[in-house]
Amino acid sequence: MKKLLNNPDDVVTEALEGTALTQPWLALLAGRTIAVRRDRLVTDDNRAELPVALISGGGAGHEPAHAGYVAPGMLTAAVSGAVFASPSVDAICDGIRAVTGDAGALLIVKSYTGDRLNFGLAAELARADGLAVEMVVVADDVALTDDDGNAGRRGLAGTILVHKIAGALAERGAGLAEVAAAARRVAETVGTMGVGLGPATVPGGAAGFELGGDEIELGLGIHGEPGVSREKLPAADELAATMIDRIVADRGLSAGDRVVLLAGNAGATPTMELMIMVRAAARALRERGIEVARVWQGPVLTSIDMPGASLSVLPVDDEQLGALDAPTAAPAWPGGGGSEPAGADEVYVPVPQAGEAGAELGEPDAGVRAAVDRATEALLAAEAELTRLDAEVGDGDLGQALARGARAWQAEPVDGSAAAILRTLSAIARREIGGTSGPLYAAGLLRAGEALAEGAGWPDAFSAGVDGVIELGGAQVGDRTMVDALVPAAEASRRGLDAAIEAARTGAAGTAEQTARRGRSSYLGERVHGHPDPGAVAVVIWLEALRG
Amino acid sequence: MKKLLNNPDDVVTEALEGTALTQPWLALLAGRTIAVRRDRLVTDDNRAELPVALISGGGAGHEPAHAGYVAPGMLTAAVSGAVFASPSVDAICDGIRAVTGDAGALLIVKSYTGDRLNFGLAAELARADGLAVEMVVVADDVALTDDDGNAGRRGLAGTILVHKIAGALAERGAGLAEVAAAARRVAETVGTMGVGLGPATVPGGAAGFELGGDEIELGLGIHGEPGVSREKLPAADELAATMIDRIVADRGLSAGDRVVLLAGNAGATPTMELMIMVRAAARALRERGIEVARVWQGPVLTSIDMPGASLSVLPVDDEQLGALDAPTAAPAWPGGGGSEPAGADEVYVPVPQAGEAGAELGEPDAGVRAAVDRATEALLAAEAELTRLDAEVGDGDLGQALARGARAWQAEPVDGSAAAILRTLSAIARREIGGTSGPLYAAGLLRAGEALAEGAGWPDAFSAGVDGVIELGGAQVGDRTMVDALVPAAEASRRGLDAAIEAARTGAAGTAEQTARRGRSSYLGERVHGHPDPGAVAVVIWLEALRG
Repeated sequence: MKKLLNNPDDVVTEALEGTALTQPWLALLAGRTIAVRRDRLVTDDNRAELPVALISGGGAGHEPAHAGYVAPGMLTAAVSGAVFASPSVDAICDGIRAVTGDAGALLIVKSYTGDRLNFGLAAELARADGLAVEMVVVADDVALTDDDGNAGRRGLAGTILVHKIAGALAERGAGLAEVAAAARRVAETVGTMGVGLGPATVPGGAAGFELGGDEIELGLGIHGEPGVSREKLPAADELAATMIDRIVADRGLSAGDRVVLLAGNAGATPTMELMIMVRAAARALRERGIEVARVWQGPVLTSIDMPGASLSVLPVDDEQLGALDAPTAAPAWPGGGGSEPAGADEVYVPVPQAGEAGAELGEPDAGVRAAVDRATEALLAAEAELTRLDAEVGDGDLGQALARGARAWQAEPVDGSAAAILRTLSAIARREIGGTSGPLYAAGLLRAGEALAEGAGWPDAFSAGVDGVIELGGAQVGDRTMVDALVPAAEASRRGLDAAIEAARTGAAGTAEQTARRGRSSYLGERVHGHPDPGAVAVVIWLEALRG
Repeated sequence: MKKLLNNPDDVVTEALEGTALTQPWLALLAGRTIAVRRDRLVTDDNRAELPVALISGGGAGHEPAHAGYVAPGMLTAAVSGAVFASPSVDAICDGIRAVTGDAGALLIVKSYTGDRLNFGLAAELARADGLAVEMVVVADDVALTDDDGNAGRRGLAGTILVHKIAGALAERGAGLAEVAAAARRVAETVGTMGVGLGPATVPGGAAGFELGGDEIELGLGIHGEPGVSREKLPAADELAATMIDRIVADRGLSAGDRVVLLAGNAGATPTMELMIMVRAAARALRERGIEVARVWQGPVLTSIDMPGASLSVLPVDDEQLGALDAPTAAPAWPGGGGSEPAGADEVYVPVPQAGEAGAELGEPDAGVRAAVDRATEALLAAEAELTRLDAEVGDGDLGQALARGARAWQAEPVDGSAAAILRTLSAIARREIGGTSGPLYAAGLLRAGEALAEGAGWPDAFSAGVDGVIELGGAQVGDRTMVDALVPAAEASRRGLDAAIEAARTGAAGTAEQTARRGRSSYLGERVHGHPDPGAVAVVIWLEALRG
């Protein structure tokens, strides 16, 4: 058990205190594990004006359920038990008393024996105290049904849709009968199926069960209760289709129906995988002719750290959709939605075409063309040497990478202006060289080409290109990179190419005494001493070749 | 590797298609892994009117980052690479071209070499194409700093705060210079520290590293890069204090500063534990005299299925708070917040006192008092017998549970009206008996007492009580529960107590031939045959004792 906690006995209290930090409108009842909306605490003054209260709860371990839904637009209070244990009747009574005014309260309860009995008795007691309290039991589980002769359907993540629809109605002032009827309608029509990829671990306890390395438990309950079958993990599309089929059959859905889809993360499954399940489930529904009006995804009702997911499907009309789209401040509500998602193909739009800038070749510059031919020849000739140098201090890929670029030029050389040739070389560097050298050469050649196009001379274009390399890569002179050859060469180029070559040679040689601060060489410390930086050596090689 | 996916090669594309279902305003660029706001696709008609575009991205595996933030109020586009791999320069260029109008675009980039080079070169190319593009690099990692002589600070979950603040400004029409300056200010002041409790597993790959059963990696990067130290897992309070100390020292925070706190789930850590970390981190900040203005928590920038968490702290002024509080449709933004959280003690409010209803004892009824004394004696005498019966078919706790209730009565018997005595017994059942019998007896006694108080006779009160048991427990006659004795007894009680006892005996005896449909006995199938239901037998025992 490796968990971020202090004492296993305090997890529920401390998690609620954390929740109150993220939902500053929350108050906690002293000595209890009950979260309530501070603005809905009943007083003698506001008793007659308070809207219908919505109260849910159950065992802890399902965070953000249910305190994460205590917010404008959803719940008024959430009563938490210990981990995976129903809260006591007296605690539930405290929660009811705290927020129930004359308009009454609706208890939204997941169908587990303890919760049904404790919330039910609390409702009975509250009614005996003169409060108007109704209760709706959510049993959305389609994996285990009464016909199986077992404990019957359980309450799963579909409960969150009950919270949302009832919450929107209560927020706009609907009466208890209307709110309760709307909640019951959702509870009676929503279907959920879960799948577990592994067990949950209770704080202070051990894993609840074991599964093989390639096994799933289909229909697993939110406390690790057994499901309907243990199977080999299928592809996500197949798994989602199986789950959707079971929901569709159980809830009597058919082509032409309009539904919303809520995918729940059991706790430890990556968002990436939930998104893949969402896609698969929506496709499965659409393939069956069922319209998918909204899709939500998130850790809405978890099982501590269980890897797995649930799919909840609710048939909806316009009024229910409106309630689902209504705003809520609850951070646990997944958000998004708001309109019908596009079809699988409609979601794609064409990639915008690249602009025509820089496409003109201009007046061919034979001298530059010949110089580039020589430089690429020189880089090809130096491939083995650069590979050897780079293997000593880096990835060993520099020789090959520059040779790739050289070959690409030779396969499709360009006769154009100096600026056009440099733009072409920049594109080759970007697409062919890769690693860090590719983007850096691409940036330098692009800047130099632009400078030439704007009328600059070679020394200024060289300097502009070197500035581009420094700006993009962030390396300075002394960092043991190609910049150690480029910067002195660019400065010296005002005195001619020979001076530039000489300065590059001196700079490259100097790198042999430097410690790297960037790239793979930086992990080798002083072990690189005595070896020059291969990127700086490569600069010397092509610069020499330019001279012809 | 046990993952919900189809083909490891398709995870990024399929996850984005799922994301587009939950964010229906998204479009995806065909053949790319780029999500854009459909209403911000640039056309010749809207080019002059489009607000500043915000573009982020990087390797996949960090979902919901970054497509989950493409929404009104946050990003305009997100460019995704393969899992843990930077997107190509050309892909980034496509993303820029798709949404950048005359107002320009800001690229928000996490500080990794690949991302810096590829986004940087893409910006350079876009500028060469005449687009106004700026870039801000986020390097909020306080675990690894340049002074350590390594690759330097990395971009972590603090990036999401850059998205949010820049997003709010762009949404209200601020110009590129203003948006970029605001983003840079956040990037320069936010500090983040991460902790890993285990490795991430790349789809199709293996776990990135190993940690001992009680070890954590402090300062772990979002791709599993090594942190600053490997340590034994401390208590959450100590861990959070260590992380906050490092952030406070690195960012130069001091008492009197005002900050916001963002806790990030690395992927597989339960929400419960994140909430405990949130509480611990806020306390650590407050103990250092730093004001905590907002707290958010969620899987904001994950590392696939890595268990772990990050803490990001950003000093803020009122204007930045306003931008953080501004609405966004992005489901990945954790929501909540909106005002300053209460102090650790201020969050608690007193538990409301129970009402006085039913507190009156009324005129003592000596006959009922004596009958209850006899019934509790009989249950105590039958404790062993009931335990034996229950051990054969259930939990074996029924004898003890009823004896607990009987002893509680005998310790504090009540001299009052019949209604008052039944209300007292109901409270005893609720608090002392527990399990399922406790709430059921409590409900039945409460209903019967209410009926008596309203002037009903005993047979009607008995029936009302039995209705209460059925309503709460949901069991019907034939389900092999105490209802099989109670229902016939209540009906027969109109002919007197003797008839009721006889009917209860017959009903209880009949349960020996029934199969259970509720409770623990339901798992035993026909193995219970030949044994009567102990709950029904208990009814016979106290009913017989009432006769005297």
